[in-house]
Amino acid sequence: MHYPEPISKLIDSFMKLPGIGPKTAVRLAFFVLNMKEDDVLEFGKSLVNAKRNLTHCSVCGHITDKDPCQICEDQSRDKSVICVVQDPKDVIAMEKMRDYTGFYHVLHGAISPMDGIGPEDINIATLLKRLQDDTVQEVILATNPNIEGEATAMYISRLLRPTGIRITRIAHGLPVGGDLEYADEVTLSKALEGRREL
Amino acid sequence: MHYPEPISKLIDSFMKLPGIGPKTAVRLAFFVLNMKEDDVLEFGKSLVNAKRNLTHCSVCGHITDKDPCQICEDQSRDKSVICVVQDPKDVIAMEKMRDYTGFYHVLHGAISPMDGIGPEDINIATLLKRLQDDTVQEVILATNPNIEGEATAMYISRLLRPTGIRITRIAHGLPVGGDLEYADEVTLSKALEGRREL
Repeated sequence: MHYPEPISKLIDSFMKLPGIGPKTAVRLAFFVLNMKEDDVLEFGKSLVNAKRNLTHCSVCGHITDKDPCQICEDQSRDKSVICVVQDPKDVIAMEKMRDYTGFYHVLHGAISPMDGIGPEDINIATLLKRLQDDTVQEVILATNPNIEGEATAMYISRLLRPTGIRITRIAHGLPVGGDLEYADEVTLSKALEGRREL
Repeated sequence: MHYPEPISKLIDSFMKLPGIGPKTAVRLAFFVLNMKEDDVLEFGKSLVNAKRNLTHCSVCGHITDKDPCQICEDQSRDKSVICVVQDPKDVIAMEKMRDYTGFYHVLHGAISPMDGIGPEDINIATLLKRLQDDTVQEVILATNPNIEGEATAMYISRLLRPTGIRITRIAHGLPVGGDLEYADEVTLSKALEGRREL
């Protein structure tokens, strides 16, 4: 035992976080010792609060401190569109863009037979319920552009086809600011496939 | 405001840590949401405990949860040597080595006129007090091998010269496993200067 117990416990806690190894954990723990006491108390409180007070919205599945969440409660949003995403962080990314005014549906994962995750393990059932009245006219599938995300989008689109609701998938192509030279073949092929009239 | 308040507060707290920017802070905060509640409570508690219960040892200046610290209390250690280091982390590094059995003295900094840090701003006065009886026969200066550390070692060695105690400085040279080809000139020159008979 090289460290006094309070600090070795703190180091252990930091090491449970992703991407933080023993050296960084020591550095962070010693940094905390030199922080203002108020900031440390605030940090400790916010950890516990975030864990205890946040739940998933019963409507859309987004993380929230009240149910239904701020977005689902917002009457000014466009009720006719639902954007389906994998993760609460994706909702944040979409909201930062400020271009989208519809609602969301968070799946909390993607179908991945390799990892034993099937359609029943992600938040699809509640999506079907939300589509039962006729308010929703479009479902945008914004799952990630990788194998699991594509499979999930494909599965949901087949599932929803009988409802007659318009189902769209976000575009694949070159990222803005990207370089044709460095694009991988699949992206380039998708960009060509998705070409539009000017 | 994109995030619910509990999580945005947690993100702010993470961003106060060194080397953690907005993106990492978001990633860590979301990770905390998926951690076991017990682990999060433990984390919060250990933060506050580390800040509240750790002080500096009144003898050597090392961080400790009881005063004097475990090392200063250890009767089996060699009372005749004191190793002077800049930082509590340096004590840990020395202790990991397991070769040194003497005591320590932590300066909590180094003399640095550029940053306005003079000899009176670091923990030198208590070192002089510890040398007043005749138990200590050697003071090893293990400050960092950079300008501030060298200046501090030089200052302390001059200060202690009248006491007649043996004053030594840790060796400069090539790190074990290093490569002569990639060593900088100063290190190489120090390595040559410090050469020993075989």
